[in-house]
Amino acid sequence: MTGEFVLIGRLRRLIESTGLASPDLLVGVGDDAALWRFGDRILAATTDSLVDRVHFRLDIARWEDLGWKALAVNLSDLAAVGAAPRFALVTLGLPPTTRAEDIERLYGAMLDLARASGTVLAGGDIVRSPVLTITVTATGEIEVPAGADWRSRVLLRSGARPGDLVAVTGSLGAAAAGLRLLLEDPVGAEARAPALVSAYRRPQPRLEVAPILVTAGIRTAIDVSDGLVADLGHICEESGVAAEIEGGRVPVHPDATRLFGADALTLALTGGEDYELVFTGPEVAVGGVAARSPVPVTVIGRIFDGPPGQVRVLGPGGEELRLERAGWDHLAGGDP
Amino acid sequence: MTGEFVLIGRLRRLIESTGLASPDLLVGVGDDAALWRFGDRILAATTDSLVDRVHFRLDIARWEDLGWKALAVNLSDLAAVGAAPRFALVTLGLPPTTRAEDIERLYGAMLDLARASGTVLAGGDIVRSPVLTITVTATGEIEVPAGADWRSRVLLRSGARPGDLVAVTGSLGAAAAGLRLLLEDPVGAEARAPALVSAYRRPQPRLEVAPILVTAGIRTAIDVSDGLVADLGHICEESGVAAEIEGGRVPVHPDATRLFGADALTLALTGGEDYELVFTGPEVAVGGVAARSPVPVTVIGRIFDGPPGQVRVLGPGGEELRLERAGWDHLAGGDP
Repeated sequence: MTGEFVLIGRLRRLIESTGLASPDLLVGVGDDAALWRFGDRILAATTDSLVDRVHFRLDIARWEDLGWKALAVNLSDLAAVGAAPRFALVTLGLPPTTRAEDIERLYGAMLDLARASGTVLAGGDIVRSPVLTITVTATGEIEVPAGADWRSRVLLRSGARPGDLVAVTGSLGAAAAGLRLLLEDPVGAEARAPALVSAYRRPQPRLEVAPILVTAGIRTAIDVSDGLVADLGHICEESGVAAEIEGGRVPVHPDATRLFGADALTLALTGGEDYELVFTGPEVAVGGVAARSPVPVTVIGRIFDGPPGQVRVLGPGGEELRLERAGWDHLAGGDP
Repeated sequence: MTGEFVLIGRLRRLIESTGLASPDLLVGVGDDAALWRFGDRILAATTDSLVDRVHFRLDIARWEDLGWKALAVNLSDLAAVGAAPRFALVTLGLPPTTRAEDIERLYGAMLDLARASGTVLAGGDIVRSPVLTITVTATGEIEVPAGADWRSRVLLRSGARPGDLVAVTGSLGAAAAGLRLLLEDPVGAEARAPALVSAYRRPQPRLEVAPILVTAGIRTAIDVSDGLVADLGHICEESGVAAEIEGGRVPVHPDATRLFGADALTLALTGGEDYELVFTGPEVAVGGVAARSPVPVTVIGRIFDGPPGQVRVLGPGGEELRLERAGWDHLAGGDP
C-alpha cells in the first residue's frame, strides 16, 4: 500500500484543489495541529490514534499506560505548535471481550495526565470494533497578546531558515530502547531499566518548554514521534531546506547506551516515540531557550540551503552515517 | 460486554469524581457535542467513528458514501446543539490492502459535503489498522449576540419540561429501510427505492433547521442516530422526565410504508440513522418552528412528569406498543 506520507500529500493536494478554505484557518494539513482563529483567540486542534498491534501490543501493554499515552501523544502535538491544552475528546473502539474495569484503568491514568496538564476530558464516543483503538482529539489555545502578530506566538514546521541551529530537548532513544527491552523480556524489563520502560509507557509531553521556545523567539518545532531524523525531515520539507546532524552530539539516553552500546545512537536517531521537541532557530534564540528550559537542551546540528527535506547525519570523522530506516511510517509496518 | 450507555455512565461518574473541570466547559459528557467558552465565542466539538462490519459493511457500502456519512453524522451532532460548522479533523484507520484511489473517493464525497455545509477539512491522522475505521471530529460555533445568555442560544438534551410537545423534522425509517433493502438485494435496491437507499448512504444533517429552532425558542433537541425511541429516551434521561409518542403520528417515510407495510413504523421508531432532529418545547415555540422550517415538522407526542428516561409509544387505541429493541447500542451488536 501507498505509504502514509505519500498518501497525505495526495489528500492534501485534493483538499487544496477544491478551494475549500476559510480566512480563519491559519494552519491546516501538514503541521502538528490545525490552527483556527476563533474570535479573539487562536484554537489549536490535533488528533492521534493508537491501534492494537500497530502502535502497541496488548500482551506487553498495560491499560493504564495506553490511556496515558493516547492523551500524551496529542498533548505533545499541542506543545509542538506552542499551544496550552484546553480540552480533549476520547473515542474508544472496543472489542466485545473488553472488561469495564480495564477501560476504567485506561481512563484513570488518562485523567491523571489530564489533571497534571490542565486538560479537561469533555466527551467522545464509544464504539464496538474488532480491534482496540484509542483516538484522542485535543484542543489547545495559543495566547496572542493584544497587538501582537499570531505568527510570533506559534511554532510551525515551516519556519526553518539556512543558518539556524537544530536543538532538541531532553534525551533520545529511551522509548525505543524501552520497547526493545519489553519485547525481549516482558517480565524483567522494568527492573533492568525502569527509566527506559517508563519513557516508552508514560511519555511526558514537553508542555512546559513550549512557551519558553515561543518567548525566546523560536518559530519552528516538531515533536519526536516518528524519530529524530524523520521528524526533522518533516521540518525540512515544510521549510524547503536541508539539515545536518552531528551524530556525536545527539543526547542519547545513558541507560540506552549502557544496555545497547552503539545501537543506542540508531534508536535515538530513528526509534521515535520520545516526544521531545526538536526546534530550529538563530543561535541567540536557542541560547535563550537553553538558559531558561527546565529540561536540558542540546544543539545537535544546523539547517542549510540544500535539497528540501534532506537530513544527513555525520559521524565522528565528518562522514555521513547510513541509516537503514529514517523513522516510523505508520502505514509501512514494522514492530509496534 | 457492558453496554455502551452503562459504560458511558460509569466513565462519566469517574470523570466527574476527579473534580477535573473548567469554568469554560459549559457542556461536557452526556450531550451531542461538548461546548466550550473560548474567549468571546462558544465552540462546539463532537466526534463520531464508523467501523467496518459495525457501522457499515464494505461489501454493500461505497467508499464515497462512507466519506459523506462519516462527516454527516458529526455535522448532525453540531446541528443538534445549534452550532454552525467550522472545521473538521479526519482520522483514517486503513488496512494494508486499501487502494489510494478508494481513499480519494472517500475524501472526494466528504469534500462535497464539506463544501455544501461550510466545513473546512483542517487535518487529521492516517494510521494502519486491521479494520477500516473513519473517525471525524467536527467543530462548530454557537453565535451568542452581545448581552445574550449563551443558554438561550443552544440546544441541549437536558431542557425538556413536562407539558412540552415532542416534534420531529422530516420523515423517519427511510435509512433503516434502505439498509434492509441493501442487505436483501445489494444490486437491485437502488432501482427499487432510490430515496431509501440514498437516505441510508447520504444522510442530510439538518443544519438549516437548527438556527430556526433556536430563534423560535426551542432549547431541547437531539439527532436521530440510535433510533427515535432511544434518542428521545436520552433527552428524557438528561431532563429527568418521561415521554409519550403517538405511533399514528410518527411521519414514516412513504416508500418505507410501501415496501414494508406495518413494519415501517418499527423501522421509524427504532431503526436509527435518520439524522432528523427530535425536539421538545412549548406549543408556541414548536408552532414557530413549523411555520418557518424548510422541512416538514410533525408533532408526535408530549413530555410528562414520569419515570426519568421512560418513552412509551401508544397505538391507535391508546394501548402501549411493545418494541423489541429500543434502538441501537453500539456495543451490543446487531446488523450494521
